[in-house]
Amino acid sequence: MTPRVKEILSWYGADNPGTLTNLARLLNHGRLGGTGKLVILPVDQGFEHGPARSFAPNPPAYDPRYHFELAIEAGCNAYAAPLGFLEAGARDYAGDIPLILKTNDADSLRDDKDPQQALTSAVADALRLGCCAVGFTIYPGSAHETAMYGQLRAYAEEAKRNGLAVVVWSYPRGAAISKEGETAIDVVGYAVQIAAQLGAHIIKVKLPTAHIEQDAARKVYEARAIPIATPVERVRHAVDCAFAGRRILIFSGGATVADDETLLDEFRAIHEGGGFGSIIGRNSFQRPRPAALALLRAAMDIYAS
Amino acid sequence: MTPRVKEILSWYGADNPGTLTNLARLLNHGRLGGTGKLVILPVDQGFEHGPARSFAPNPPAYDPRYHFELAIEAGCNAYAAPLGFLEAGARDYAGDIPLILKTNDADSLRDDKDPQQALTSAVADALRLGCCAVGFTIYPGSAHETAMYGQLRAYAEEAKRNGLAVVVWSYPRGAAISKEGETAIDVVGYAVQIAAQLGAHIIKVKLPTAHIEQDAARKVYEARAIPIATPVERVRHAVDCAFAGRRILIFSGGATVADDETLLDEFRAIHEGGGFGSIIGRNSFQRPRPAALALLRAAMDIYAS
Amino acid sequence: MTPRVKEILSWYGADNPGTLTNLARLLNHGRLGGTGKLVILPVDQGFEHGPARSFAPNPPAYDPRYHFELAIEAGCNAYAAPLGFLEAGARDYAGDIPLILKTNDADSLRDDKDPQQALTSAVADALRLGCCAVGFTIYPGSAHETAMYGQLRAYAEEAKRNGLAVVVWSYPRGAAISKEGETAIDVVGYAVQIAAQLGAHIIKVKLPTAHIEQDAARKVYEARAIPIATPVERVRHAVDCAFAGRRILIFSGGATVADDETLLDEFRAIHEGGGFGSIIGRNSFQRPRPAALALLRAAMDIYAS
Amino acid sequence: MTPRVKEILSWYGADNPGTLTNLARLLNHGRLGGTGKLVILPVDQGFEHGPARSFAPNPPAYDPRYHFELAIEAGCNAYAAPLGFLEAGARDYAGDIPLILKTNDADSLRDDKDPQQALTSAVADALRLGCCAVGFTIYPGSAHETAMYGQLRAYAEEAKRNGLAVVVWSYPRGAAISKEGETAIDVVGYAVQIAAQLGAHIIKVKLPTAHIEQDAARKVYEARAIPIATPVERVRHAVDCAFAGRRILIFSGGATVADDETLLDEFRAIHEGGGFGSIIGRNSFQRPRPAALALLRAAMDIYAS
Amino acid sequence: MTPRVKEILSWYGADNPGTLTNLARLLNHGRLGGTGKLVILPVDQGFEHGPARSFAPNPPAYDPRYHFELAIEAGCNAYAAPLGFLEAGARDYAGDIPLILKTNDADSLRDDKDPQQALTSAVADALRLGCCAVGFTIYPGSAHETAMYGQLRAYAEEAKRNGLAVVVWSYPRGAAISKEGETAIDVVGYAVQIAAQLGAHIIKVKLPTAHIEQDAARKVYEARAIPIATPVERVRHAVDCAFAGRRILIFSGGATVADDETLLDEFRAIHEGGGFGSIIGRNSFQRPRPAALALLRAAMDIYAS
Repeated sequence: MTPRVKEILSWYGADNPGTLTNLARLLNHGRLGGTGKLVILPVDQGFEHGPARSFAPNPPAYDPRYHFELAIEAGCNAYAAPLGFLEAGARDYAGDIPLILKTNDADSLRDDKDPQQALTSAVADALRLGCCAVGFTIYPGSAHETAMYGQLRAYAEEAKRNGLAVVVWSYPRGAAISKEGETAIDVVGYAVQIAAQLGAHIIKVKLPTAHIEQDAARKVYEARAIPIATPVERVRHAVDCAFAGRRILIFSGGATVADDETLLDEFRAIHEGGGFGSIIGRNSFQRPRPAALALLRAAMDIYAS
Repeated sequence: MTPRVKEILSWYGADNPGTLTNLARLLNHGRLGGTGKLVILPVDQGFEHGPARSFAPNPPAYDPRYHFELAIEAGCNAYAAPLGFLEAGARDYAGDIPLILKTNDADSLRDDKDPQQALTSAVADALRLGCCAVGFTIYPGSAHETAMYGQLRAYAEEAKRNGLAVVVWSYPRGAAISKEGETAIDVVGYAVQIAAQLGAHIIKVKLPTAHIEQDAARKVYEARAIPIATPVERVRHAVDCAFAGRRILIFSGGATVADDETLLDEFRAIHEGGGFGSIIGRNSFQRPRPAALALLRAAMDIYAS
Repeated sequence: MTPRVKEILSWYGADNPGTLTNLARLLNHGRLGGTGKLVILPVDQGFEHGPARSFAPNPPAYDPRYHFELAIEAGCNAYAAPLGFLEAGARDYAGDIPLILKTNDADSLRDDKDPQQALTSAVADALRLGCCAVGFTIYPGSAHETAMYGQLRAYAEEAKRNGLAVVVWSYPRGAAISKEGETAIDVVGYAVQIAAQLGAHIIKVKLPTAHIEQDAARKVYEARAIPIATPVERVRHAVDCAFAGRRILIFSGGATVADDETLLDEFRAIHEGGGFGSIIGRNSFQRPRPAALALLRAAMDIYAS
Repeated sequence: MTPRVKEILSWYGADNPGTLTNLARLLNHGRLGGTGKLVILPVDQGFEHGPARSFAPNPPAYDPRYHFELAIEAGCNAYAAPLGFLEAGARDYAGDIPLILKTNDADSLRDDKDPQQALTSAVADALRLGCCAVGFTIYPGSAHETAMYGQLRAYAEEAKRNGLAVVVWSYPRGAAISKEGETAIDVVGYAVQIAAQLGAHIIKVKLPTAHIEQDAARKVYEARAIPIATPVERVRHAVDCAFAGRRILIFSGGATVADDETLLDEFRAIHEGGGFGSIIGRNSFQRPRPAALALLRAAMDIYAS
Repeated sequence: MTPRVKEILSWYGADNPGTLTNLARLLNHGRLGGTGKLVILPVDQGFEHGPARSFAPNPPAYDPRYHFELAIEAGCNAYAAPLGFLEAGARDYAGDIPLILKTNDADSLRDDKDPQQALTSAVADALRLGCCAVGFTIYPGSAHETAMYGQLRAYAEEAKRNGLAVVVWSYPRGAAISKEGETAIDVVGYAVQIAAQLGAHIIKVKLPTAHIEQDAARKVYEARAIPIATPVERVRHAVDCAFAGRRILIFSGGATVADDETLLDEFRAIHEGGGFGSIIGRNSFQRPRPAALALLRAAMDIYAS
């Protein structure tokens, strides 16, 4: 156990030893093991965007074993996916990589200005599959947020009681938030805080822009001259919103990016700003395996530096 | 236990021995036993379309015993029906044929642009009736999909815990999907993926057309030149969407077809494309028994070839 | 135990001995005991239409004891009523007559184009009151049907587990069904089938007319020339819809009829068409006791013939 | 135990000895103990109308102890109030007076054409506070009536199982009922019947007027010439609607009345019409204590006569 | 145990010794320990207004440890916060200060004319974190009030059963209440009463203005000449609404106030009017620590006087 991992675990004093053990498994696994940084492979796009859009760019990815093996070979800290994908490999790869069960999901067959996620698996499923954490998405700003926060409350309580960690995908959206506002620095910072207050151990958000969405927030950002001009500054601010850095905050890779340098720059900004790492889906499993491995390892090299 | 059935069971490593035993019962029963292919008799049309529309074309079919006997005599792998029909024969034909309890149903007395299914029986009913699986319908794309996915989540968790298998009827429909889109290749492939991610052991969809419903999907189908011109290619693509063929995917016979050759061609396409078989309702029980037996056996001959 | 009752019980092979015993109690009690036919006294009109409309025509009927005594003296197979009416006599008349607890009810203080019933008692109430069955109303065609089917599912499962029988009042209504359509032969036949598929042991519908409500059904009735011209034929068709007569189907007496001969003709048609009897409320308890006894006995004479 | 109380208890043959004991406590306590008549002090106006409107007319009534003491000193049969008021005195006055816990309440901070009550305490609260009954309000005619009946069903089942009595406030209101109709004789009679059928031991309604609200009811009242011209006749009719007088029916004092003689005339009419007593809130606790005691005792004198 | 604390505890005779012990912990802790007065530090603004608006004015406040230490150093009676903030310090500061877990929260990412709070933690969380009370917000007047009262009912019942105290934030708002009406004396008094009737041990409201919102209330305030002209009179009236002072009523500090004297005058008015203290959030943690300590101690000096 490295001093850094010990330090991180010390922030979670309310948790039982079971949950701490599972957090430690996440932090100690893979090429970044012990550094306190994380690179996680998430594959819920089959549910969220459909199989062809997700896997046709790299057809071996239709096979659920592909993602287990990619995550293992790349040396990721964990692999996160919905029930079906985890069930399809949990026995074959038992013990090879920490698993995060995504317990709610939304498809894109219909459009709702106030989106919602359906419960697609249970804490009991995570336990029987040997996962170390449950993943849960909330949409702060959606008209359904009250229901989603309440569901997370119940899942988190059950997960912690059973020694699991809780990873929250916090994605602001809904009728009251503009498209640009979904990644606005004030809104992303707020989304970080909500997830942290709801008891998340690990929080995942999108990399924020310099846009400010809410007038009431703009006044403060300007009056206090909060530095948000550069990606590094924005990451640093988001980390502040995660209990002054005392909650693990990671960033999603976002849409497929043509230019790897852009992506690597993002990782460098996250790293320099004090972020804890990345969760990289489409930019990894949608390219050929060697290229995916190269990218994931390049990301890890940045976070390990 | 044939090597092929052993192979299929190996895909379900997350399940307990009870569920594997019930999957094996389905795969090893009847004329296709051991081949890894399935022909199932489903009779939920009395609920879905009404008794006269369903059974008047072949009046002996009003009697619930008729369908047990048809499925047994034809050598089907299983018989699937709602609570009432199974209760009406489960003791008399106990042990004669694997049963699938359809646990939700919708009638056609009212029209809803966003349809929903009512829970009509429970996992506990499936257990007391000696069923090997529960059947559950979802309507991806309906405004009620969130509720239906959540109900399936609960039923599937309870079923698997109790050693039952889970069969999901995945029928896209709802205000956001055009009539043509309900069988579009992209939408059917998506419906397959959703059912698989929700943890289905066996997935049933309609045979897809070459139509593409969603613009976001069309781009990928064209850019990647996914072959979907012929029925065989479309079945193959749908099988890919079922975890690269690692989930059992069967196809419904659809509306009554006047011309048997058309139907047999469909079975041939399913077989050639790597599909796992058919679930044949109206095209079997709505014709006289000898004709039904002939058709079912012709289907089995194709799948056994 | 008569051969006929034995035969009827044989249709319910999925039920436990407790439920069969209670079905036998219903079939073996009263003047029609052992014939396989049933005449039941139902008194839920105090809730459904209000006390004055229900009981002022025959004021002794305000007293809950009146109905117990009427049913006992007439030799009915059972007495069915909501919680309050049964609680008011269950101890005094314990063992004198089989009881059916009506577990949901609707009042007529408000008008809803899509009506719903409120849960007014529980399976546990039926058990503590010594009832042999629970009664439950569904409104196929109402926008609330999904909720009602789901409630029935839960009540039926609990009732059967505890050795009770399930009697379903299946009354089509709702915005999508015309007033005339509520008693249309196709709709009533469909309502019979739905109740049977939901697991009802005994189904109660209104006597259907020759009207056909749904276009999709009309095609089949015409193409197959299903005989529905006379009341006898319509009863026979409804019995077919009850699993080819393998579920007990009874008919409600409907609104108060001035002319007894009309009523007796209805009973004769039900009897000749293979119906299992009648449930006679307003036409019995709203007339003076001697006249009610005379009518109930006349009905029984028809069914015993 | 007086013969009259014994007689009343005999109407509740479905209840367990625990519930009968609590009914007997209510009937045997206070100045009317043993007469079969009841005068109850209810104080839920702080919640229903707000504290100033309720208690400013008699400021000592802000103190929860005031009402316990008023009810005890006046010799009421029971004191009924929401959770907070009962918690504030249940230990200090333990054993001094039977308590009825009002388990749902509505405030008047918002206006809803279809009103609803919120659940504000539980059966478990009634048990831990030593109450002999739970009180529950329903609004027959409200669009929320289905939910409220279902909640009462659950509370009543739990209360009876635990040996408590059930008191139902049955107040018709909602978009489908005119203001005048809320106290119409047909509607009040209907509200009595609904509460009785839902299993209430004691029913509380407002004193009805001679107005008839529903056309369908008017026909019967006229055809049968039901006497409803005088208050005595209307009470008698309401008592008939309470299972021909076999359920305890009491009447609320209604709004504050300037003229005591009017009030006493109401009590006389209730008494002469066969009503079981009064529940007197605002007309007692909103006047100075000596005047309140005088009124309550005058009421008791009438009921004891 | 001072006589005053003993007296206060005597008002809660319905509670078990566990709850009384926790109330005593709150009353006996800190600089005001034993006086019967309370100054509590609440920090839920990170969730309610967002992290930048809440903590940027005093950046050390991003760190959850800051608030524990501020409350401890100032000698507050308790520290109240949502789940995340309490989890982040409950072990490190175990035993140092009584904790109140805020169990529901609302964010300001969307605007709802009828606001609602989401359940964000459970009574079980309060127990495992060593809290002495749960906090719960209700919005009397919101269209969602029925649901919120019902949730509070369930939480309060569970909390009391497990020996915890219940603190209710009672904030009137919703479509039926004007902005000015949210702090109107009649509405605030009503909000106090509702919380008390729902079983709150400690009630928190905003300091009321002399405005009267409801016509029905205005008549009484005028007819009875209830003194509400000065802050002291209004506090006194609000205390009357809290069961004549037999429930602990505290006041929130409200928005950040530039002028400390204004704030101290409010504390003086609360003290003189018989209020039990203040809950001071933004006016403490949004200023530098020394200034915050000075203010909190100034408040305590007033309440201790």
